[in-house]
Amino acid sequence: MGPLGIKIADFITKRAGISTVAAVDKNERLVGMTLASLQEGLPADITVSASLREAVSQTRPDVAILTTVSDMERITPQILDIVALGIPVVSTCEELSYPWNTSPKLAETIDRSARENNVAVVGTGINPGFLMDALPAFFTALCQNVDRVEVNRYQNAVYRRVPFQKKIGAGLTLAEFEHKKRQGALRHVGLTESIHFIAAKLNWKLDKTEDIIMPVIAREDIVTEAMTIPKGNAAGVNQVGKGYVNGEAKIILNFRAAIGEADSFDEVKIIGTPNIYSHIEGGVNGDIGTCAITINVSRQILSAKPGLRTMGDIPSPACFAG
Amino acid sequence: MGPLGIKIADFITKRAGISTVAAVDKNERLVGMTLASLQEGLPADITVSASLREAVSQTRPDVAILTTVSDMERITPQILDIVALGIPVVSTCEELSYPWNTSPKLAETIDRSARENNVAVVGTGINPGFLMDALPAFFTALCQNVDRVEVNRYQNAVYRRVPFQKKIGAGLTLAEFEHKKRQGALRHVGLTESIHFIAAKLNWKLDKTEDIIMPVIAREDIVTEAMTIPKGNAAGVNQVGKGYVNGEAKIILNFRAAIGEADSFDEVKIIGTPNIYSHIEGGVNGDIGTCAITINVSRQILSAKPGLRTMGDIPSPACFAG
Repeated sequence: MGPLGIKIADFITKRAGISTVAAVDKNERLVGMTLASLQEGLPADITVSASLREAVSQTRPDVAILTTVSDMERITPQILDIVALGIPVVSTCEELSYPWNTSPKLAETIDRSARENNVAVVGTGINPGFLMDALPAFFTALCQNVDRVEVNRYQNAVYRRVPFQKKIGAGLTLAEFEHKKRQGALRHVGLTESIHFIAAKLNWKLDKTEDIIMPVIAREDIVTEAMTIPKGNAAGVNQVGKGYVNGEAKIILNFRAAIGEADSFDEVKIIGTPNIYSHIEGGVNGDIGTCAITINVSRQILSAKPGLRTMGDIPSPACFAG
Repeated sequence: MGPLGIKIADFITKRAGISTVAAVDKNERLVGMTLASLQEGLPADITVSASLREAVSQTRPDVAILTTVSDMERITPQILDIVALGIPVVSTCEELSYPWNTSPKLAETIDRSARENNVAVVGTGINPGFLMDALPAFFTALCQNVDRVEVNRYQNAVYRRVPFQKKIGAGLTLAEFEHKKRQGALRHVGLTESIHFIAAKLNWKLDKTEDIIMPVIAREDIVTEAMTIPKGNAAGVNQVGKGYVNGEAKIILNFRAAIGEADSFDEVKIIGTPNIYSHIEGGVNGDIGTCAITINVSRQILSAKPGLRTMGDIPSPACFAG
């Protein structure tokens, strides 16, 4: 029941056909509180429980939405606990979106347990999960052959929440940016998983992947409500993921989020037969999109094959109501 | 082994991981001919057979690609014959793309037979099958709610084959256009199926659908290699499909193909939370795209659930090789 869990709960209350029946968080500050006390409009008759087993024993949920951590190491035991109760899982865990290459052992552990319990597990979100992997792979269905896949996600982060702005390093000096980058605290998680997702869908064998993180440098002083960024400091991040086939970069994912970025858009370029160039004007808002797709996938997971699934092998989701 | 079958066979020879093992056509002019004699580069060791049973008995194909007719009435017995042999079917039959509302009894007949024989059947193509149904439905996965779906497919038909140009009425007088339209010879088949596809994915109950066909009128004389279109005659067709919910047009599919059309593009507008506006520059070539997606789907059909499937409930396709 962090910010993402609360926003998803809020979206669920506004949807016909789905409702929240239980909420779990280990944070002692939240345990025992009603959802309504966390945010206006949420159910007043549901209290946050510290115990998964207790929370689901009475309520028998059809699906669990898991919005806790970004890495496979920590998400795996959480998933195993839920799956053991016979409940399918949709998670926003970035590394779960396509863990078969980056965390094969943990992926197999989850897959085996999900099969044994006859439920499906999937990692989703707007990115990873859609814009830089599932969508470009889907576009290639129109192609007789594909030479290269390029995806560009450019965002003017001034429209995003302050925690997101901090996450992308906005306002840091270049030394601070470098330091945080070395700590692994700055990266957009999931770019390598998106590369492997596309390669798997296209049946490409990759020699190697790269994940390059650079600051976007403020060309002049930038003043926002939340911060002032001096010229020369980082205004955000530019992260480039590359997947190589026979020494050639055939998958190029370019993620750029910075305050003051001139234009926001999501772009897919398939170089092949035919070429396909798709452009989403203004880009897709990450906060709304991730919460929405998580709910939308929660319907599809019910008809997916048991096991660890990806956005590439579940029935394609859509916005449902009723 | 009409134009579409030959082009698909040609694409298959150029792909790793898939090959043609048999060819069937009832056309006496073709029976007994080698594929190589129909088009250079196709296999010289495969002859066109008049008998499905004979053609597949030795070769045991994994999947049948069926490119014969556009309507459910005539495609159904063909599909039943193939399915009875335990072979899954991918077809370019437009009405098969989503027949559950327009031909429910035939859809059920196919579905039952496919289940009994433990194979899947699907209708695909670029349109219907992708651009005006599967793609916009997929985009809505990013949305918390959807108020309206608009799709615009605009094509300058000067770049398409002459049979396509004739199919859209290019060159006809307005009286001839009206006459052909009344005969049902002018319509783009599948627009209503695309509407029902989107409505089903979004769980919308439609009051009614409309399928309006109008000529695009030449504003000046148009001279192409194949024809001269006098000013005032039809340069092509504009077909608008609408799906209504509570009296309001919530799905609007605008298909426009005419010689001399200023711009070619494929556009999706989702009015909802958030709005999504996607634009494919230049549009997607229908001849290449339909052949390619048919081959790409032929892999996915092997892991689809048995029965009559749609592009909305098979694992999402991508361009595969190897």
